[in-house]
Amino acid sequence: MQYQRIHPKGPEFSRIIAGVWNWADETINERCIAAALDCGITTFDHADIYGGYTIEELFGRILKQHPGLRNKMQLVTKCGIKLKVDNKPEHRIKHYDTTYEHIIQSVETSLKNLGTDRIDLLLIHRPDPLLNPQEVAKAFEDLYEKGKVLHFGVSNFTSTQFEMLQSFLPMPLVTNQLEVSLFKSDYLFNGVSDVMMKHHVGIMAWSPLGNGKYFDDLEKMQTLGVLADKYKVSTAKLLFAWLLAHPANLFPITGTTKTERIQEAAAALDVKLGQQDWFAMLKIIKGFDVA
Amino acid sequence: MQYQRIHPKGPEFSRIIAGVWNWADETINERCIAAALDCGITTFDHADIYGGYTIEELFGRILKQHPGLRNKMQLVTKCGIKLKVDNKPEHRIKHYDTTYEHIIQSVETSLKNLGTDRIDLLLIHRPDPLLNPQEVAKAFEDLYEKGKVLHFGVSNFTSTQFEMLQSFLPMPLVTNQLEVSLFKSDYLFNGVSDVMMKHHVGIMAWSPLGNGKYFDDLEKMQTLGVLADKYKVSTAKLLFAWLLAHPANLFPITGTTKTERIQEAAAALDVKLGQQDWFAMLKIIKGFDVA
Amino acid sequence: MQYQRIHPKGPEFSRIIAGVWNWADETINERCIAAALDCGITTFDHADIYGGYTIEELFGRILKQHPGLRNKMQLVTKCGIKLKVDNKPEHRIKHYDTTYEHIIQSVETSLKNLGTDRIDLLLIHRPDPLLNPQEVAKAFEDLYEKGKVLHFGVSNFTSTQFEMLQSFLPMPLVTNQLEVSLFKSDYLFNGVSDVMMKHHVGIMAWSPLGNGKYFDDLEKMQTLGVLADKYKVSTAKLLFAWLLAHPANLFPITGTTKTERIQEAAAALDVKLGQQDWFAMLKIIKGFDVA
Repeated sequence: MQYQRIHPKGPEFSRIIAGVWNWADETINERCIAAALDCGITTFDHADIYGGYTIEELFGRILKQHPGLRNKMQLVTKCGIKLKVDNKPEHRIKHYDTTYEHIIQSVETSLKNLGTDRIDLLLIHRPDPLLNPQEVAKAFEDLYEKGKVLHFGVSNFTSTQFEMLQSFLPMPLVTNQLEVSLFKSDYLFNGVSDVMMKHHVGIMAWSPLGNGKYFDDLEKMQTLGVLADKYKVSTAKLLFAWLLAHPANLFPITGTTKTERIQEAAAALDVKLGQQDWFAMLKIIKGFDVA
Repeated sequence: MQYQRIHPKGPEFSRIIAGVWNWADETINERCIAAALDCGITTFDHADIYGGYTIEELFGRILKQHPGLRNKMQLVTKCGIKLKVDNKPEHRIKHYDTTYEHIIQSVETSLKNLGTDRIDLLLIHRPDPLLNPQEVAKAFEDLYEKGKVLHFGVSNFTSTQFEMLQSFLPMPLVTNQLEVSLFKSDYLFNGVSDVMMKHHVGIMAWSPLGNGKYFDDLEKMQTLGVLADKYKVSTAKLLFAWLLAHPANLFPITGTTKTERIQEAAAALDVKLGQQDWFAMLKIIKGFDVA
Repeated sequence: MQYQRIHPKGPEFSRIIAGVWNWADETINERCIAAALDCGITTFDHADIYGGYTIEELFGRILKQHPGLRNKMQLVTKCGIKLKVDNKPEHRIKHYDTTYEHIIQSVETSLKNLGTDRIDLLLIHRPDPLLNPQEVAKAFEDLYEKGKVLHFGVSNFTSTQFEMLQSFLPMPLVTNQLEVSLFKSDYLFNGVSDVMMKHHVGIMAWSPLGNGKYFDDLEKMQTLGVLADKYKVSTAKLLFAWLLAHPANLFPITGTTKTERIQEAAAALDVKLGQQDWFAMLKIIKGFDVA
């Protein structure tokens, strides 16, 4: 495994991150945490809302059972979305909430559910059109001063949303978590990755293998498979390697509950993808020369 | 009424602004000026071209008849468009003109027509592809030094046009006047409002109720009406409240000639729209959850 | 001819630039170099790949035959594209390459082919998704320190790509070479020219007359012709004048091999296009009022 700072003043993360959004019971959490740590993945990506507000608590049970575990890992979580779910009858509509009160309250709940005294990295989950940057700044400052959150970032933000919020904060936003894969590479071409690179901000890449639907295009997958064979690796490893070869400092998040998939993701760091093959993969998916 | 600076170094405006584009005779001007001031609206939004270059002069007649009036109000006007109209035969085509000569000449004409010695805020009406930022800077500086214009801004500018012009000016652009309403909220989502917030620039919102055509969608208007009933206000007030709740520091411009509509706009400041209802209104118009 | 710096710290270029991409044999190069210099065009725009990696060497033969010539001109060249051509069997796919090694090697080859000890301006030919700004910075610094390249720029870059790369460089990027013409004026309206103006970066305009296909729209060309008649010039001159009238400091690149076309381009500087005619030309092509 490779460990590196996601930003010059940000936390040191494992280059492959375990995403827990789908770790739906205690057994899965116990097994997956162990599998991740075994292959050097030390960073775990949460959100308050995952599993309908249930995953943080399931994950936290394991931490409580194994007191030494917390210090071997970095915890990322998010706030700012309010889901319309049965256990939140006060939410009449799915909406965003980035008020001071909600950010503070959400972090307090995350800390309690996770059974920890600190979040390594807190993200605003999605850009809120009602986001008041001064309120967010105050919430971040208070959480930082009390040691409850060590670093801050955002998720699914455009460049202008990122730079606007940053301009009101005393600390750097250290990441922008975005959907990036060979199949959905928009952010690498629409200016967002440029702006993140300008700010030395690493990108946490969610859905790094695309979603299952892409695997239905048998012809393209077969052509990718031929290239994977050349490297003597699985197509999934090749897809991780494609992200890792990009200069924008991408940290792919595996979203799996399968032990062998976690191991596969971690092992992708050994694949050194050639420059021409990087363009060849893009051409396979886009259907035309990118150069 | 609420009064606030549109920019930290900008003028203090009434939060609701009276737009005079349609005040087509002297009687309307006399009645509407009185109605606006009566309910605390002290800021009036002009342009040289309104009414085919006629409104400033009609408005000015009232100021001349009531010498105390000028000091009770803030006057905004604009320059930079040349209309193809009968009384301007030298305009062979509708075009923009942001040359030094035209800006100076346009302001002199506005001062004379309005019967005042100063414009509180001058805007470049639309982005001119031939805009030479050094020329505009010289015109602004000369107008400022002579006390003829106290503050400067733009209208209908993109983010890059705004930042380009700003980079050549010694004084801050204090506003970007844009079309913003619940029905046309593009600028709140395409990055322009982010960039304005980053620069602490308040937005003057024209056509804040959309235009009449939206009111023809009876189903959507009815759904909005149900929400308005909950607040015990008119739909128009609710639409103003939607803008006022946004963190981008929006100053809605009423474009009406009706006394009761002016009063309604001013009273919208009393409506405190809830966060979930803000999202609910957006969902009604867009047809899908925005969060 | 008019000579001006393309950037405050950049080289002084002739306002009309000779593009050599199509100068396919030694005779053409000899004739066209003489024709260009005769009418004051002193700047020549190359790329390593022009003519399938052949033009620099053909041009260089003339420089070797006439030792005094090099000091009378400014040479621009480019690197960063790898073509799939017969004489480069190691290129399995057309792709970009902006690694340190390739930039250095490409410049060394250009210097040798051109028979000169220095490039006045080196451009990254197209934005490379794998561009590592630190590597490019190191290559630029090394080339600058050895006196092999005097100035640096880019070509076909978006605003964010430009600003990202610039943020890693100790020297200014002095140009962004872009396709700009009356027929393809996107960059003058989509924010790129704004950002270049903000950075005081002049734009080298390639394909300034559009390409031949536009001339097939007989109705539009006829309407342009009427305007050209008014100025007593050819339509081509009028098209150059349209670019020269824009405030973004455009340097049109002629791409011709015809002596009289080179002379025509140079003479376009004498045409002073009126403001209203500038808008009229845009309206002819776009089909609607731009103001």
